[in-house]
Amino acid sequence: MKVTEKKSAPIGVFDSGVGGLTVMREISRQLPCENIIYFGDTARVPYGSKSQNNVIRFSEQIIRFLQTKQVKAIVIACNTASALALESVQERFAVPIIGVVIPGARAAVEVTQNRKVGVVGTDATVQSGMYTKVIHKMAPDIVVLEKACPLFVPLVEEGFKEHVVTEEVIEYYLDSLRNTEIDAMILGCTHYPLLRSKIRAFMGDKIQIVNPAYETAMDLKKLLKQQGIENDGAAGECKRYEFYVSDAAEKFRKFANTVMPFDVPTTNVVNIEEY
Amino acid sequence: MKVTEKKSAPIGVFDSGVGGLTVMREISRQLPCENIIYFGDTARVPYGSKSQNNVIRFSEQIIRFLQTKQVKAIVIACNTASALALESVQERFAVPIIGVVIPGARAAVEVTQNRKVGVVGTDATVQSGMYTKVIHKMAPDIVVLEKACPLFVPLVEEGFKEHVVTEEVIEYYLDSLRNTEIDAMILGCTHYPLLRSKIRAFMGDKIQIVNPAYETAMDLKKLLKQQGIENDGAAGECKRYEFYVSDAAEKFRKFANTVMPFDVPTTNVVNIEEY
Repeated sequence: MKVTEKKSAPIGVFDSGVGGLTVMREISRQLPCENIIYFGDTARVPYGSKSQNNVIRFSEQIIRFLQTKQVKAIVIACNTASALALESVQERFAVPIIGVVIPGARAAVEVTQNRKVGVVGTDATVQSGMYTKVIHKMAPDIVVLEKACPLFVPLVEEGFKEHVVTEEVIEYYLDSLRNTEIDAMILGCTHYPLLRSKIRAFMGDKIQIVNPAYETAMDLKKLLKQQGIENDGAAGECKRYEFYVSDAAEKFRKFANTVMPFDVPTTNVVNIEEY
Repeated sequence: MKVTEKKSAPIGVFDSGVGGLTVMREISRQLPCENIIYFGDTARVPYGSKSQNNVIRFSEQIIRFLQTKQVKAIVIACNTASALALESVQERFAVPIIGVVIPGARAAVEVTQNRKVGVVGTDATVQSGMYTKVIHKMAPDIVVLEKACPLFVPLVEEGFKEHVVTEEVIEYYLDSLRNTEIDAMILGCTHYPLLRSKIRAFMGDKIQIVNPAYETAMDLKKLLKQQGIENDGAAGECKRYEFYVSDAAEKFRKFANTVMPFDVPTTNVVNIEEY
């Protein structure tokens, strides 16, 4: 591919389902000229309760699919896949791939004064201990407290965002974190920003809530610039957004339209197991 | 296969995950001599939020896998797959296949005096309206009220069975059913029997709770007898139980050991997408 062609080539963004749309939204804000292909693995969602082997295999299939769309870079917009599969797929594929864990960890390291950071995420993300490993590579003195909150995803997906039950579940999971000296907490799952106001209300103002989506989009921007492949609009198409899922396209489209600041028109279904 | 061989051939039982173990448990009680192969699709669980096309495709793959084990009959121990895929796979495969919806519907029809029946299940099961269709084939005069309770499965899987949050979610979903004249309610998802005591406490004594597992095992018994292929122990092996999953075998084994009345020793992982 020529550099001019590469500049207008799309960025691939993938997630286990709809959560990664919060990351795509941030990318489209910070890199308004980029074309983006989004893939949500709605046939096999959620990843957070599944094994590393399968999360790696699912990620490889999705990357092979995205490569058929000539993507110039890939963002794993799923904390579980970033934690469990990033290293493996970076070794295996030539296309540049970034995840959300390293940018999220860096933001927390920059923010914490007490040198105590909390991380909330799915079972798989927390069991991998990946946030702790990455933070300790950057700053070995920081104490990291990780806590799995597996009910947060179904509560968001089933429309309980504003229900009192969600407040009780937040208290159940986060009470032990509130009684510590952490002053930064990473929302280590792309669904959790949708509970942000309730989480903030429970944790109080002294704790900074870190959403890795913002930092991930910054990292992507840097990467494209370094490689000279950012889309400056001079070489062709801009702002082309395509959405693919492995199941239930209409349900996805409806949800996407509640999250994205633009209209999501059609969503295409892909048999991802064939890749 | 000779009839004597067929008698000792195993029964295949499958589910999207662990829920179908409640059905296998009932089969092993009522048919104590049968050999059983259980398959739980833990890599793609849950089915309740997925489309009919994919649930049919997943079911076909599992049936092809079970056929490599020379099963003499198959029980779909998952309400969603029974509701969405049974007719399609019965047309496609020669092996006898039964689901849980028809037996569950029949039990409710026999029990109701008021001719008003409630059904609770996953989104996909309720949207299919299959319980209503099947009940109306048996008794067109019965009023059927179906209600999706999508949070029940994650509450069970995340260990909130005894938590007050579960009581509130039960109230949230079932309040509208309690204020009707139903006198029978089908637990149309294999996870729900694990919440039975809390559901009963909320719904009161006047409503009979129907668990399709018992009736399904009865139907299977009848089927094997009709075809003369029940295992009488004369022709070889008895009570051989094998467990297969598509992911996270150890987690499955631990859960299975809390549900089954015997020790579940090893669980094998199968790459089900290859079938």
